[in-house]
Amino acid sequence: MRMKMVISYDGTNFSGYQIQPGKRTIQGEIEKALGKMHKIDKVPVIASGRTDSGVHAIGQVIHFDTQLQIEPSNWLRALTSLLPSDIQIIDIGKVDDHFHARYDAKSKEYRYVIFHREQPDIFKRHYAYWVAESLDIDKMKQALTYIEGKHDFTSFCAANSGVKGDKIRTVLQAALEEQGDEIIFTIRGDGFLYNMVRIIVGTVVEVGKGKRDPEEILNILRAKNRKVAGKTAPAHGLFLWNVQY
Amino acid sequence: MRMKMVISYDGTNFSGYQIQPGKRTIQGEIEKALGKMHKIDKVPVIASGRTDSGVHAIGQVIHFDTQLQIEPSNWLRALTSLLPSDIQIIDIGKVDDHFHARYDAKSKEYRYVIFHREQPDIFKRHYAYWVAESLDIDKMKQALTYIEGKHDFTSFCAANSGVKGDKIRTVLQAALEEQGDEIIFTIRGDGFLYNMVRIIVGTVVEVGKGKRDPEEILNILRAKNRKVAGKTAPAHGLFLWNVQY
Repeated sequence: MRMKMVISYDGTNFSGYQIQPGKRTIQGEIEKALGKMHKIDKVPVIASGRTDSGVHAIGQVIHFDTQLQIEPSNWLRALTSLLPSDIQIIDIGKVDDHFHARYDAKSKEYRYVIFHREQPDIFKRHYAYWVAESLDIDKMKQALTYIEGKHDFTSFCAANSGVKGDKIRTVLQAALEEQGDEIIFTIRGDGFLYNMVRIIVGTVVEVGKGKRDPEEILNILRAKNRKVAGKTAPAHGLFLWNVQY
Repeated sequence: MRMKMVISYDGTNFSGYQIQPGKRTIQGEIEKALGKMHKIDKVPVIASGRTDSGVHAIGQVIHFDTQLQIEPSNWLRALTSLLPSDIQIIDIGKVDDHFHARYDAKSKEYRYVIFHREQPDIFKRHYAYWVAESLDIDKMKQALTYIEGKHDFTSFCAANSGVKGDKIRTVLQAALEEQGDEIIFTIRGDGFLYNMVRIIVGTVVEVGKGKRDPEEILNILRAKNRKVAGKTAPAHGLFLWNVQY
Protein backbone atom coordinates (compact mmCIF):
# COMPACT_ATOMS: atom_id res chain seq x y z
CA MET A 1 0.00 0.00 0.00
CA ARG A 2 1.42 3.39 -0.96
CA MET A 3 1.00 6.38 1.34
CA LYS A 4 1.31 10.06 0.44
CA MET A 5 2.24 12.50 3.15
CA VAL A 6 2.32 16.30 3.19
CA ILE A 7 4.82 17.63 5.70
CA SER A 8 6.04 20.96 7.03
CA TYR A 9 9.42 21.51 8.61
CA ASP A 10 11.53 24.19 10.18
CA GLY A 11 14.85 23.70 8.37
CA THR A 12 16.91 25.63 10.92
CA ASN A 13 18.34 22.68 12.83
CA PHE A 14 18.66 20.23 9.93
CA SER A 15 21.51 19.55 7.52
CA GLY A 16 18.94 19.69 4.72
CA TYR A 17 16.33 17.18 3.59
CA GLN A 18 18.47 14.38 2.20
CA ILE A 19 19.74 11.59 4.41
CA GLN A 20 23.48 11.77 5.24
CA PRO A 21 25.39 9.59 7.66
CA GLY A 22 25.99 11.28 11.01
CA LYS A 23 23.87 14.33 10.14
CA ARG A 24 20.42 15.32 11.35
CA THR A 25 18.26 15.43 8.23
CA ILE A 26 14.52 15.54 7.58
CA GLN A 27 14.56 12.34 5.53
CA GLY A 28 16.63 10.62 8.22
CA GLU A 29 14.19 11.55 11.00
CA ILE A 30 11.14 10.46 8.99
CA GLU A 31 12.66 7.13 7.90
CA LYS A 32 13.63 6.43 11.51
CA ALA A 33 10.15 7.31 12.86
CA LEU A 34 8.49 5.11 10.23
CA GLY A 35 11.01 2.40 11.08
CA LYS A 36 9.85 2.44 14.71
CA MET A 37 6.23 2.03 13.60
CA HIS A 38 7.23 -0.91 11.39
CA LYS A 39 9.62 -2.35 13.99
CA ILE A 40 12.50 -2.25 11.54
CA ASP A 41 15.55 -0.03 11.19
CA LYS A 42 14.01 2.41 8.72
CA VAL A 43 11.42 2.72 5.97
CA PRO A 44 12.67 4.44 2.78
CA VAL A 45 10.71 7.51 1.67
CA ILE A 46 10.79 9.51 -1.55
CA ALA A 47 10.17 13.26 -1.58
CA SER A 48 9.18 15.66 -4.37
CA GLY A 49 12.77 16.91 -4.18
CA ARG A 50 15.49 17.86 -1.72
CA THR A 51 15.76 21.08 0.22
CA ASP A 52 19.06 22.52 1.39
CA SER A 53 20.26 23.09 4.93
CA GLY A 54 18.25 25.91 6.51
CA VAL A 55 15.47 25.81 3.90
CA HIS A 56 11.94 25.35 5.28
CA ALA A 57 8.88 23.58 3.95
CA ILE A 58 5.20 24.31 4.36
CA GLY A 59 3.99 21.57 2.01
CA GLN A 60 6.72 19.09 1.07
CA VAL A 61 5.30 15.84 -0.35
CA ILE A 62 6.63 12.36 0.37
CA HIS A 63 5.56 8.82 -0.48
CA PHE A 64 6.38 5.44 1.03
CA ASP A 65 5.12 1.88 0.97
CA THR A 66 3.73 0.00 3.94
CA GLN A 67 1.92 -3.18 4.89
CA LEU A 68 0.48 -1.65 8.06
CA GLN A 69 -3.30 -1.40 8.18
CA ILE A 70 -3.89 1.83 10.08
CA GLU A 71 -6.59 4.51 9.80
CA PRO A 72 -5.30 7.83 8.34
CA SER A 73 -6.04 9.77 11.56
CA ASN A 74 -4.12 7.15 13.55
CA TRP A 75 -1.22 7.31 11.12
CA LEU A 76 -1.02 11.04 11.74
CA ARG A 77 -1.17 10.67 15.51
CA ALA A 78 1.28 7.78 15.76
CA LEU A 79 3.86 9.30 13.44
CA THR A 80 3.55 12.76 15.00
CA SER A 81 4.40 11.30 18.40
CA LEU A 82 7.57 9.75 16.94
CA LEU A 83 8.79 12.82 15.03
CA PRO A 84 10.77 15.73 16.48
CA SER A 85 8.95 19.02 17.07
CA ASP A 86 10.44 20.64 13.96
CA ILE A 87 8.75 18.24 11.54
CA GLN A 88 4.97 18.32 11.27
CA ILE A 89 2.65 16.06 9.32
CA ILE A 90 -0.04 18.13 7.67
CA ASP A 91 -1.82 15.29 5.90
CA ILE A 92 -1.37 11.59 5.25
CA GLY A 93 -3.44 9.16 3.21
CA LYS A 94 -3.45 6.19 0.88
CA VAL A 95 -2.69 6.83 -2.80
CA ASP A 96 -2.59 4.82 -5.99
CA ASP A 97 0.34 2.36 -6.03
CA HIS A 98 1.77 4.16 -9.06
CA PHE A 99 1.92 7.60 -7.42
CA HIS A 100 5.46 8.97 -7.27
CA ALA A 101 6.19 12.08 -5.17
CA ARG A 102 9.02 13.15 -7.44
CA TYR A 103 8.17 12.03 -10.96
CA ASP A 104 4.47 12.91 -10.78
CA ALA A 105 5.01 16.47 -9.52
CA LYS A 106 3.58 18.81 -12.18
CA SER A 107 4.77 22.03 -10.58
CA LYS A 108 6.19 23.39 -7.35
CA GLU A 109 5.73 26.66 -5.57
CA TYR A 110 8.42 28.31 -3.49
CA ARG A 111 8.13 31.45 -1.41
CA TYR A 112 11.04 33.57 -0.35
CA VAL A 113 10.73 36.06 2.51
CA ILE A 114 12.79 39.23 2.78
CA PHE A 115 12.62 41.20 6.00
CA HIS A 116 13.04 44.77 4.85
CA ARG A 117 13.78 47.16 7.69
CA GLU A 118 16.76 49.15 8.89
CA GLN A 119 16.91 47.24 12.18
CA PRO A 120 16.98 43.44 12.13
CA ASP A 121 14.46 41.38 14.11
CA ILE A 122 16.05 38.44 15.92
CA PHE A 123 12.76 36.53 15.86
CA LYS A 124 12.97 36.44 12.06
CA ARG A 125 16.66 35.59 11.82
CA HIS A 126 16.00 31.99 10.75
CA TYR A 127 12.89 32.71 8.64
CA ALA A 128 13.64 35.73 6.48
CA TYR A 129 16.56 37.37 4.70
CA TRP A 130 17.19 40.73 6.33
CA VAL A 131 17.83 43.56 3.86
CA ALA A 132 18.39 47.01 5.40
CA GLU A 133 19.06 48.98 2.20
CA SER A 134 16.25 50.73 0.34
CA LEU A 135 14.77 48.71 -2.51
CA ASP A 136 12.93 49.80 -5.64
CA ILE A 137 9.98 47.43 -5.47
CA ASP A 138 8.59 48.36 -8.89
CA LYS A 139 11.90 47.56 -10.60
CA MET A 140 12.06 44.24 -8.75
CA LYS A 141 8.56 43.41 -9.97
CA GLN A 142 9.59 44.32 -13.49
CA ALA A 143 12.68 42.10 -13.27
CA LEU A 144 10.52 39.18 -12.19
CA THR A 145 8.36 39.49 -15.31
CA TYR A 146 11.40 38.50 -17.40
CA ILE A 147 11.83 35.36 -15.30
CA GLU A 148 8.36 34.09 -16.11
CA GLY A 149 8.03 31.72 -19.07
CA LYS A 150 10.09 28.95 -20.64
CA HIS A 151 13.82 29.71 -20.56
CA ASP A 152 17.20 28.10 -20.31
CA PHE A 153 17.99 28.87 -16.68
CA THR A 154 21.69 27.87 -16.79
CA SER A 155 22.65 31.30 -15.42
CA PHE A 156 20.36 30.70 -12.44
CA CYS A 157 21.74 27.26 -11.59
CA ALA A 158 24.56 26.70 -9.09
CA ALA A 159 27.76 25.97 -11.02
CA ASN A 160 28.44 22.82 -8.98
CA SER A 161 24.93 21.46 -9.40
CA GLY A 162 25.68 18.25 -11.29
CA VAL A 163 22.29 18.65 -13.01
CA LYS A 164 22.09 16.29 -15.96
CA GLY A 165 20.16 17.05 -19.11
CA ASP A 166 18.99 20.44 -20.27
CA LYS A 167 18.40 23.42 -18.02
CA ILE A 168 15.23 24.58 -19.70
CA ARG A 169 12.42 25.12 -17.23
CA THR A 170 9.09 26.94 -17.29
CA VAL A 171 8.42 29.47 -14.55
CA LEU A 172 4.64 29.74 -14.31
CA GLN A 173 4.64 32.59 -11.80
CA ALA A 174 7.33 34.95 -10.56
CA ALA A 175 5.90 37.71 -8.42
CA LEU A 176 6.41 39.57 -5.18
CA GLU A 177 4.16 41.22 -2.66
CA GLU A 178 4.88 43.63 0.19
CA GLN A 179 3.29 42.76 3.53
CA GLY A 180 4.29 45.25 6.18
CA ASP A 181 8.04 44.87 6.70
CA GLU A 182 8.16 41.76 4.54
CA ILE A 183 8.63 41.25 0.82
CA ILE A 184 7.31 37.84 -0.18
CA PHE A 185 8.36 36.29 -3.48
CA THR A 186 6.20 33.59 -5.07
CA ILE A 187 8.03 31.48 -7.66
CA ARG A 188 6.09 28.62 -9.22
CA GLY A 189 7.44 26.42 -11.97
CA ASP A 190 7.40 23.01 -13.60
CA GLY A 191 10.84 22.27 -12.23
CA PHE A 192 13.76 23.96 -10.54
CA LEU A 193 17.51 23.77 -10.91
CA TYR A 194 19.87 23.70 -7.95
CA ASN A 195 19.67 27.04 -6.06
CA MET A 196 17.51 28.50 -8.84
CA VAL A 197 15.03 30.34 -6.59
CA ARG A 198 17.79 31.71 -4.37
CA ILE A 199 19.81 32.98 -7.35
CA ILE A 200 16.69 34.59 -8.85
CA VAL A 201 15.96 36.34 -5.53
CA GLY A 202 19.59 37.39 -5.05
CA THR A 203 19.70 38.87 -8.56
CA VAL A 204 16.34 40.64 -8.20
CA VAL A 205 17.52 42.15 -4.89
CA GLU A 206 20.50 43.62 -6.76
CA VAL A 207 17.99 45.17 -9.17
CA GLY A 208 16.10 46.55 -6.17
CA LYS A 209 19.28 48.12 -4.81
CA GLY A 210 19.89 49.84 -8.15
CA LYS A 211 22.99 47.80 -8.96
CA ARG A 212 21.37 46.34 -12.09
CA ASP A 213 18.60 47.36 -14.46
CA PRO A 214 15.52 45.14 -14.61
CA GLU A 215 16.15 44.46 -18.31
CA GLU A 216 19.51 42.88 -17.44
CA ILE A 217 17.60 39.72 -16.53
CA LEU A 218 17.16 39.14 -20.28
CA ASN A 219 20.93 39.33 -20.86
CA ILE A 220 21.59 37.06 -17.90
CA LEU A 221 19.23 34.43 -19.29
CA ARG A 222 20.86 34.69 -22.73
CA ALA A 223 24.39 34.37 -21.31
CA LYS A 224 23.75 30.85 -19.90
CA ASN A 225 26.53 31.49 -17.40
CA ARG A 226 26.14 31.42 -13.62
CA LYS A 227 28.79 34.10 -13.23
CA VAL A 228 26.69 36.83 -14.81
CA ALA A 229 23.75 36.42 -12.41
CA GLY A 230 23.68 37.87 -8.88
CA LYS A 231 24.50 36.37 -5.52
CA THR A 232 22.64 33.38 -4.12
CA ALA A 233 20.21 34.67 -1.48
CA PRO A 234 20.56 32.89 1.90
CA ALA A 235 18.79 29.58 2.51
CA HIS A 236 16.85 30.67 5.59
CA GLY A 237 14.42 32.92 3.65
CA LEU A 238 13.27 30.06 1.41
CA PHE A 239 10.12 27.97 1.89
CA LEU A 240 8.97 25.06 -0.29
CA TRP A 241 5.33 26.15 -0.24
CA ASN A 242 3.54 23.32 -2.02
CA VAL A 243 3.75 20.73 -4.77
CA GLN A 244 1.06 20.28 -7.42
CA TYR A 245 0.27 16.86 -8.94
CA MET B 1 29.74 56.50 33.57
CA ARG B 2 26.46 54.60 33.67
CA MET B 3 25.00 53.13 30.49
CA LYS B 4 21.39 52.07 29.87
CA MET B 5 20.71 49.45 27.26
CA VAL B 6 17.45 48.17 25.75
CA ILE B 7 17.76 44.61 24.51
CA SER B 8 15.64 42.02 22.76
CA TYR B 9 16.24 38.29 22.99
CA ASP B 10 14.88 35.02 21.77
CA GLY B 11 14.68 33.02 25.00
CA THR B 12 14.47 29.62 23.27
CA ASN B 13 18.07 28.56 23.68
CA PHE B 14 18.79 30.17 27.05
CA SER B 15 18.41 28.87 30.59
CA GLY B 16 16.67 32.13 31.44
CA TYR B 17 18.05 35.61 32.02
CA GLN B 18 19.97 35.19 35.26
CA ILE B 19 23.58 34.08 35.28
CA GLN B 20 24.14 30.46 36.40
CA PRO B 21 27.39 28.55 36.36
CA GLY B 22 27.65 26.17 33.40
CA LYS B 23 24.42 27.41 31.81
CA ARG B 24 23.87 29.60 28.76
CA THR B 25 22.05 32.67 30.07
CA ILE B 26 21.32 36.12 28.68
CA GLN B 27 23.05 37.89 31.56
CA GLY B 28 26.04 35.59 31.19
CA GLU B 29 26.43 36.32 27.46
CA ILE B 30 26.12 40.08 27.95
CA GLU B 31 28.57 40.23 30.86
CA LYS B 32 31.06 38.19 28.84
CA ALA B 33 30.68 40.40 25.73
CA LEU B 34 31.14 43.56 27.82
CA GLY B 35 34.11 41.87 29.50
CA LYS B 36 35.78 41.45 26.09
CA MET B 37 35.29 45.13 25.33
CA HIS B 38 36.81 46.05 28.69
CA LYS B 39 39.54 43.39 28.42
CA ILE B 40 38.47 41.84 31.73
CA ASP B 41 36.61 38.63 32.59
CA LYS B 42 33.16 40.20 32.78
CA VAL B 43 31.31 43.42 33.51
CA PRO B 44 28.35 43.05 35.90
CA VAL B 45 24.99 44.23 34.58
CA ILE B 46 21.65 44.81 36.32
CA ALA B 47 18.35 44.19 34.53
CA SER B 48 14.80 45.40 35.25
CA GLY B 49 14.13 41.84 36.35
CA ARG B 50 14.76 38.22 35.42
CA THR B 51 12.96 36.23 32.78
CA ASP B 52 12.58 32.46 32.93
CA SER B 53 13.96 29.86 30.57
CA GLY B 54 12.13 30.10 27.23
CA VAL B 55 10.69 33.57 27.91
CA HIS B 56 11.47 36.22 25.28
CA ALA B 57 12.09 39.95 25.50
CA ILE B 58 11.35 42.75 23.08
CA GLY B 59 12.45 45.57 25.39
CA GLN B 60 14.35 44.34 28.45
CA VAL B 61 16.33 47.13 30.15
CA ILE B 62 19.80 46.78 31.63
CA HIS B 63 22.35 49.14 33.17
CA PHE B 64 26.09 48.87 33.76
CA ASP B 65 29.03 51.10 34.63
CA THR B 66 32.01 51.72 32.38
CA GLN B 67 35.07 53.92 32.02
CA LEU B 68 35.23 53.44 28.25
CA GLN B 69 34.75 56.58 26.20
CA ILE B 70 32.86 55.34 23.15
CA GLU B 71 30.19 56.95 20.95
CA PRO B 72 26.69 55.38 21.41
CA SER B 73 26.58 54.15 17.79
CA ASN B 74 29.98 52.53 18.23
CA TRP B 75 28.87 50.90 21.48
CA LEU B 76 25.98 49.37 19.60
CA ARG B 77 28.16 48.13 16.75
CA ALA B 78 30.99 46.79 18.93
CA LEU B 79 28.73 44.99 21.38
CA THR B 80 26.50 43.58 18.61
CA SER B 81 29.52 41.99 17.01
CA LEU B 82 30.40 40.27 20.32
CA LEU B 83 26.90 39.02 21.17
CA PRO B 84 25.27 35.83 19.87
CA SER B 85 22.56 36.14 17.20
CA ASP B 86 19.74 35.57 19.70
CA ILE B 87 20.47 38.73 21.69
CA GLN B 88 19.96 42.09 19.99
CA ILE B 89 20.74 45.56 21.26
CA ILE B 90 17.91 47.91 20.39
CA ASP B 91 19.33 51.01 22.02
CA ILE B 92 22.25 52.04 24.22
CA GLY B 93 23.14 55.36 25.76
CA LYS B 94 24.57 57.21 28.76
CA VAL B 95 22.26 57.80 31.72
CA ASP B 96 22.40 59.58 35.05
CA ASP B 97 24.75 57.83 37.50
CA HIS B 98 21.79 57.22 39.83
CA PHE B 99 19.66 55.39 37.27
CA HIS B 100 18.83 51.83 38.34
CA ALA B 101 17.25 49.42 35.82
CA ARG B 102 15.41 47.52 38.54
CA TYR B 103 14.58 49.99 41.31
CA ASP B 104 13.60 52.85 39.00
CA ALA B 105 11.20 50.78 36.87
CA LYS B 106 7.74 52.34 37.30
CA SER B 107 5.87 49.68 35.36
CA LYS B 108 6.41 46.77 33.02
CA GLU B 109 4.43 45.46 30.10
CA TYR B 110 4.27 41.80 29.17
CA ARG B 111 2.56 40.28 26.16
CA TYR B 112 1.51 36.68 25.93
CA VAL B 113 0.74 35.05 22.58
CA ILE B 114 -1.69 32.17 22.13
CA PHE B 115 -1.81 30.45 18.77
CA HIS B 116 -5.43 29.43 18.46
CA ARG B 117 -6.03 26.94 15.68
CA GLU B 118 -6.91 23.26 15.43
CA GLN B 119 -3.60 22.42 13.73
CA PRO B 120 -0.34 23.58 15.30
CA ASP B 121 2.22 25.61 13.35
CA ILE B 122 5.79 24.45 13.90
CA PHE B 123 7.14 27.90 13.09
CA LYS B 124 5.35 29.25 16.16
CA ARG B 125 6.27 26.40 18.52
CA HIS B 126 8.79 28.51 20.43
CA TYR B 127 6.89 31.81 20.24
CA ALA B 128 3.26 31.08 21.08
CA TYR B 129 1.19 28.73 23.25
CA TRP B 130 -0.84 26.51 20.96
CA VAL B 131 -4.47 26.04 22.07
CA ALA B 132 -6.63 23.87 19.79
CA GLU B 133 -9.88 23.92 21.80
CA SER B 134 -12.55 26.55 21.16
CA LEU B 135 -12.33 29.59 23.43
CA ASP B 136 -14.99 32.06 24.51
CA ILE B 137 -13.10 35.29 23.87
CA ASP B 138 -15.73 37.54 25.47
CA LYS B 139 -15.61 35.59 28.74
CA MET B 140 -11.81 35.76 28.70
CA LYS B 141 -11.99 39.53 28.25
CA GLN B 142 -14.45 39.75 31.14
CA ALA B 143 -12.15 37.65 33.36
CA LEU B 144 -9.27 40.02 32.62
CA THR B 145 -11.27 43.02 33.84
CA TYR B 146 -11.20 41.50 37.36
CA ILE B 147 -7.41 41.28 37.17
CA GLU B 148 -7.00 45.01 36.62
CA GLY B 149 -6.48 47.18 39.67
CA LYS B 150 -4.68 46.88 43.00
CA HIS B 151 -4.99 43.38 44.48
CA ASP B 152 -3.18 40.84 46.60
CA PHE B 153 -1.96 38.49 43.86
CA THR B 154 -0.84 35.65 46.16
CA SER B 155 -3.05 33.21 44.21
CA PHE B 156 -1.23 34.21 41.02
CA CYS B 157 2.27 33.75 42.41
CA ALA B 158 4.23 30.50 42.08
CA ALA B 159 4.15 28.71 45.45
CA ASN B 160 7.95 28.30 45.45
CA SER B 161 8.61 31.93 44.60
CA GLY B 162 10.52 33.00 47.69
CA VAL B 163 9.02 36.50 47.20
CA LYS B 164 9.61 38.58 50.32
CA GLY B 165 7.21 41.24 51.51
CA ASP B 166 3.60 41.64 50.49
CA LYS B 167 2.08 40.37 47.29
CA ILE B 168 -0.02 43.42 46.55
CA ARG B 169 0.51 44.71 43.04
CA THR B 170 -1.35 47.05 40.72
CA VAL B 171 -2.24 45.77 37.28
CA LEU B 172 -2.67 48.87 35.11
CA GLN B 173 -3.88 47.00 32.03
CA ALA B 174 -5.09 43.44 31.46
CA ALA B 175 -6.53 42.99 28.00
CA LEU B 176 -6.48 40.71 25.00
CA GLU B 177 -6.84 41.16 21.29
CA GLU B 178 -7.45 38.67 18.48
CA GLN B 179 -5.16 39.01 15.47
CA GLY B 180 -5.90 36.33 12.91
CA ASP B 181 -5.02 33.00 14.52
CA GLU B 182 -3.39 34.70 17.49
CA ILE B 183 -4.76 35.92 20.79
CA ILE B 184 -2.42 38.50 22.27
CA PHE B 185 -2.63 39.37 25.95
CA THR B 186 -1.26 42.69 27.19
CA ILE B 187 -0.57 42.80 30.94
CA ARG B 188 0.95 45.96 32.33
CA GLY B 189 1.60 46.55 36.01
CA ASP B 190 3.73 48.30 38.61
CA GLY B 191 5.34 45.00 39.56
CA PHE B 192 4.96 41.28 38.99
CA LEU B 193 5.26 38.24 41.20
CA TYR B 194 7.00 35.06 40.09
CA ASN B 195 5.03 33.45 37.20
CA MET B 196 2.21 35.97 37.70
CA VAL B 197 1.52 36.65 34.01
CA ARG B 198 1.67 32.97 33.10
CA ILE B 199 -0.73 32.00 35.90
CA ILE B 200 -3.12 34.79 34.88
CA VAL B 201 -3.05 33.57 31.27
CA GLY B 202 -3.41 29.91 32.27
CA THR B 203 -6.42 30.74 34.45
CA VAL B 204 -8.06 32.95 31.82
CA VAL B 205 -7.62 30.17 29.22
CA GLU B 206 -9.56 27.86 31.56
CA VAL B 207 -12.31 30.50 31.58
CA GLY B 208 -12.19 30.54 27.77
CA LYS B 209 -12.58 26.76 27.65
CA GLY B 210 -15.68 27.00 29.87
CA LYS B 211 -14.05 25.26 32.83
CA ARG B 212 -14.49 28.33 35.03
CA ASP B 213 -16.79 31.36 35.09
CA PRO B 214 -15.20 34.78 34.58
CA GLU B 215 -16.40 35.89 38.03
CA GLU B 216 -14.31 33.13 39.63
CA ILE B 217 -11.29 35.40 39.25
CA LEU B 218 -12.70 37.43 42.16
CA ASN B 219 -12.83 34.33 44.38
CA ILE B 220 -9.34 33.31 43.32
CA LEU B 221 -7.95 36.72 44.29
CA ARG B 222 -9.75 36.56 47.65
CA ALA B 223 -8.47 33.04 48.40
CA LYS B 224 -4.80 34.13 48.40
CA ASN B 225 -3.86 30.56 47.59
CA ARG B 226 -1.96 29.45 44.49
CA LYS B 227 -3.86 26.15 44.42
CA VAL B 228 -7.19 27.75 43.54
CA ALA B 229 -5.88 29.49 40.39
CA GLY B 230 -5.38 27.71 37.06
CA LYS B 231 -2.35 26.17 35.45
CA THR B 232 0.77 28.15 34.64
CA ALA B 233 0.76 28.83 30.89
CA PRO B 234 4.00 27.76 29.16
CA ALA B 235 7.01 30.07 29.13
CA HIS B 236 7.45 30.23 25.36
CA GLY B 237 4.33 32.37 24.76
CA LEU B 238 5.61 35.13 27.06
CA PHE B 239 7.39 38.32 25.97
CA LEU B 240 8.71 41.08 28.23
CA TRP B 241 7.49 43.88 25.98
CA ASN B 242 8.89 47.01 27.60
CA VAL B 243 9.78 48.71 30.87
CA GLN B 244 8.64 52.19 31.77
CA TYR B 245 10.76 54.54 33.94
